[in-house]
Amino acid sequence: MTRYRATLSYDGTDYHGFQRQAAEHEPTVQGEVERTLAKIGQPGVTVVGSGRTDAGVHAAGQVIAFETDWRHSPADLYRALNATLPADIAVLEIAKAASDFHPRYSVVSREYVYTIYNMPVRHPLYRRYALHVPEPLDEAAMNAATVRLVGEHDFAAFGLPTVGAATVRRMVRAECRAETRSPHGGARFVWVELEANGFLYRMVRGIVGTLLAVGRGAMTPEQFGAVFESRDRSRAEAPAPPHGLCLVQVKY
Amino acid sequence: MTRYRATLSYDGTDYHGFQRQAAEHEPTVQGEVERTLAKIGQPGVTVVGSGRTDAGVHAAGQVIAFETDWRHSPADLYRALNATLPADIAVLEIAKAASDFHPRYSVVSREYVYTIYNMPVRHPLYRRYALHVPEPLDEAAMNAATVRLVGEHDFAAFGLPTVGAATVRRMVRAECRAETRSPHGGARFVWVELEANGFLYRMVRGIVGTLLAVGRGAMTPEQFGAVFESRDRSRAEAPAPPHGLCLVQVKY
Repeated sequence: MTRYRATLSYDGTDYHGFQRQAAEHEPTVQGEVERTLAKIGQPGVTVVGSGRTDAGVHAAGQVIAFETDWRHSPADLYRALNATLPADIAVLEIAKAASDFHPRYSVVSREYVYTIYNMPVRHPLYRRYALHVPEPLDEAAMNAATVRLVGEHDFAAFGLPTVGAATVRRMVRAECRAETRSPHGGARFVWVELEANGFLYRMVRGIVGTLLAVGRGAMTPEQFGAVFESRDRSRAEAPAPPHGLCLVQVKY
Repeated sequence: MTRYRATLSYDGTDYHGFQRQAAEHEPTVQGEVERTLAKIGQPGVTVVGSGRTDAGVHAAGQVIAFETDWRHSPADLYRALNATLPADIAVLEIAKAASDFHPRYSVVSREYVYTIYNMPVRHPLYRRYALHVPEPLDEAAMNAATVRLVGEHDFAAFGLPTVGAATVRRMVRAECRAETRSPHGGARFVWVELEANGFLYRMVRGIVGTLLAVGRGAMTPEQFGAVFESRDRSRAEAPAPPHGLCLVQVKY
């Protein structure tokens, strides 16, 4: 048996998250990759991910590991997987890994981006991968709030612990920026980009939900800081919906 | 009865083109807008578009016109339409129009963009709105070929006449450019942007299909020019697929 490490991108719209459910009736990314491995002659393989992504969340750099007795080259495995996976999942990279490589345990940081389409009317071409916010967002105020997240902090105000009870994480980079992009007629986007050594459950969506209040002028960056420091989830806004969120990179 | 002019955006993936079919069983954008008008109390309205878009082609600025006896403001009509249309169609703008306004007859120019995702592996997040080309494309050579299209020319090599037999059109702007974009991990895109006073049937897709041969190095810009000047469709490459194409703007 050889251990492989692979980087996945996927459109999470039609999946019930990354992780296979106890009840098999909901499609998951993990389940789909395992089914694809079976189709190319590798049945019974268990795929492990670097972390869960919620239902509807996308990835451009999820990392997985699995063991098989594939007898051809990694390049052949890469081609076989991409030729067999459904159109909404792709393998970006694949390589043999050390036998003790676990995509969850040796993570240095994860990077997420949350995309907001900030124009008066919803746009069909951006609806799957961006949250539509019709009111103009003040990205400078949002960024002033976002940079307060950098450093080692207790993020209990914005998410729930995944395992154990620890809610302290180290935010390496936190930024909010806006850009008006062609070529589809000048569409304004706002991105919240966060890189941390770990994230609590729903933490990015919790942060973005509260940042939207700052962007709309309902909350100052200082008030955002006070919510953050309170460690009290009841003071934060509702989490932003999943479809704007994308796991961009996992660093080891 | 009042005449309205509206600008539509749509995701063409699930439609059999803009124009309603003789047989009603295929969903079309026109049919969907007419059905929506009926739902908001305006039955029996015929919607006219600035031009057809093929099955699978998108729009960020299709212009339509229709007549109704809507008794509220245009702003109310705009809200009612956007609240009732499916998620893959939106009205970007709506206004009362002169009673003789026809979206097809007084067009000054139309602008299309064709999007290519130019990375080794297909990417699920770009699959609906961009053609995936895995081999590196030489956008400088593609642009050198594209600029040859500017001016009044016979485009018979790249498309079929829509009405009548005329195949001469005036290309106002023709450009090919590339850009590597964040925030989803450095994705390289190539865009072909064309603005003309009119387009033959499948003309943009015909041009892009042959430009791809230039981008891959299978044809020089000079050879592209010779194909163009031959007016012979059998010398052009197969048209590029519809899902990379978007009607961006119609000018009057």
